[in-house]
Amino acid sequence: MTLLDARQTRPIEGGASFSLGNRLLRFCWGLAWLLLARFTPPQLHGWRRLVLRGFGAKIGRGVRVHSSVRIWLPVNLELGDFCLIGPGAHLYNQGRIVIGARSVVSQGAHICASTHDIADPHFQLLLRPVTIGEQAWIAAEAFVGPGVTVGDRAVIGARAALFEDAAPDGVYSGNPARLLKQRGLREP
Amino acid sequence: MTLLDARQTRPIEGGASFSLGNRLLRFCWGLAWLLLARFTPPQLHGWRRLVLRGFGAKIGRGVRVHSSVRIWLPVNLELGDFCLIGPGAHLYNQGRIVIGARSVVSQGAHICASTHDIADPHFQLLLRPVTIGEQAWIAAEAFVGPGVTVGDRAVIGARAALFEDAAPDGVYSGNPARLLKQRGLREP
Amino acid sequence: MTLLDARQTRPIEGGASFSLGNRLLRFCWGLAWLLLARFTPPQLHGWRRLVLRGFGAKIGRGVRVHSSVRIWLPVNLELGDFCLIGPGAHLYNQGRIVIGARSVVSQGAHICASTHDIADPHFQLLLRPVTIGEQAWIAAEAFVGPGVTVGDRAVIGARAALFEDAAPDGVYSGNPARLLKQRGLREP
Repeated sequence: MTLLDARQTRPIEGGASFSLGNRLLRFCWGLAWLLLARFTPPQLHGWRRLVLRGFGAKIGRGVRVHSSVRIWLPVNLELGDFCLIGPGAHLYNQGRIVIGARSVVSQGAHICASTHDIADPHFQLLLRPVTIGEQAWIAAEAFVGPGVTVGDRAVIGARAALFEDAAPDGVYSGNPARLLKQRGLREP
Repeated sequence: MTLLDARQTRPIEGGASFSLGNRLLRFCWGLAWLLLARFTPPQLHGWRRLVLRGFGAKIGRGVRVHSSVRIWLPVNLELGDFCLIGPGAHLYNQGRIVIGARSVVSQGAHICASTHDIADPHFQLLLRPVTIGEQAWIAAEAFVGPGVTVGDRAVIGARAALFEDAAPDGVYSGNPARLLKQRGLREP
Repeated sequence: MTLLDARQTRPIEGGASFSLGNRLLRFCWGLAWLLLARFTPPQLHGWRRLVLRGFGAKIGRGVRVHSSVRIWLPVNLELGDFCLIGPGAHLYNQGRIVIGARSVVSQGAHICASTHDIADPHFQLLLRPVTIGEQAWIAAEAFVGPGVTVGDRAVIGARAALFEDAAPDGVYSGNPARLLKQRGLREP
């Protein structure tokens, strides 16, 4: 079973886009997060890292994932050291989502790693991995679309909706998101 | 009692825009959905169709409405055969919402069928029905505004905010949404 | 303890941006709203005003705050007479939020009074108060960003994302929000 492939199916007719194994795994995952993590106090980041790793996510040191974060399937997730995923963020990782070290995903942001073939009368599901570099910031309620790569240190501003790749150190804003300026990060 | 008319009232002063009957009906509806549908497993689409029809919604064959969908009032709702309304979608149907057969409304999308008269110092509520054609796709977290008509097979992209009519087969994106290209749907 | 200052700290390394006192206060506040207000019927606006005032918010006469509203910290909040804060609105007032009399914040709108210094490798939190005038309308799911002032009677349309000041009587729309027209409010 490769979890990265959507099946050739007919979603409109009710055809399941994922295998029974995948769906059972997701059911267990949803239940586990609800019982073990959803109502934990903010400080218990270490415990939530354990739960995520137990379901196959690749989670670095010091990663902080808030309890209200929604993750489609942990095996499709990789978070680098000291990543922060804020309250209510949505990692819709039907396709794989990889986020580099020290990057921040703020409250209510949505990263979406799948879409549909709009030319296909059967509306085939397409998995399109999203890759976010190191030290990037996906600000409050921003949206990062399927197949997009966000460069190191890039900033995707609040409520921005990004459908194309973002260059390293670029600051993006608007819907659709456009390059606004360079970040100009100072030396530590 | 016609449920489609907002009353001449003064919302800012706390005047209720809807009759007591309407408000009682909505209270019962909210409670019924919470107890009968909100915590049902994804597969129970048939059962949720029954609940919706019981409250006056016109629901076609094979329609799938997820348990986390929010509907203002079922009597103002009409869903054609094989429609799919995804997780967390919001059908804010103070005015009537009609969605054609085989159309898909993805997760977190918001369809809003009312607004306010901004020139009126009393801020009168205005009901503005929304009509969506057949085989259309309202993608993740898109917004379809009051009074808008979406043509057959049109695609309103993720996070797009649509305030004008969308032509059949058009693909729209951005906020405000603009025509991006033609869908080019292949023959089945 | 001044609640308006973020501490010089290193959020990426896990440094808390707020004092222990602030965090304890917020814990009590969250618990109090959950137990005392979150599940109250819509009509109990007077009771919810009491709860908010008890936690230090400055709340005028006839203010209506729905039970599903999220408020970061009441002491940073000031609502003028007859303000209405609709279902699911988010007042993220790490910095102070002041809203004038008879203004309406609709369902799902988000007012955000803080940001980060993107040039600072330590990603310092910055508090940027938001001021909204009288009789303004922040429509459904609109976003008002840090440091922004919204003039009297201005309208920020549905899903608009406002990052610059809005002039009195202006109607704004889009992301980023642009001036669309004048409101033309009639005399009462």
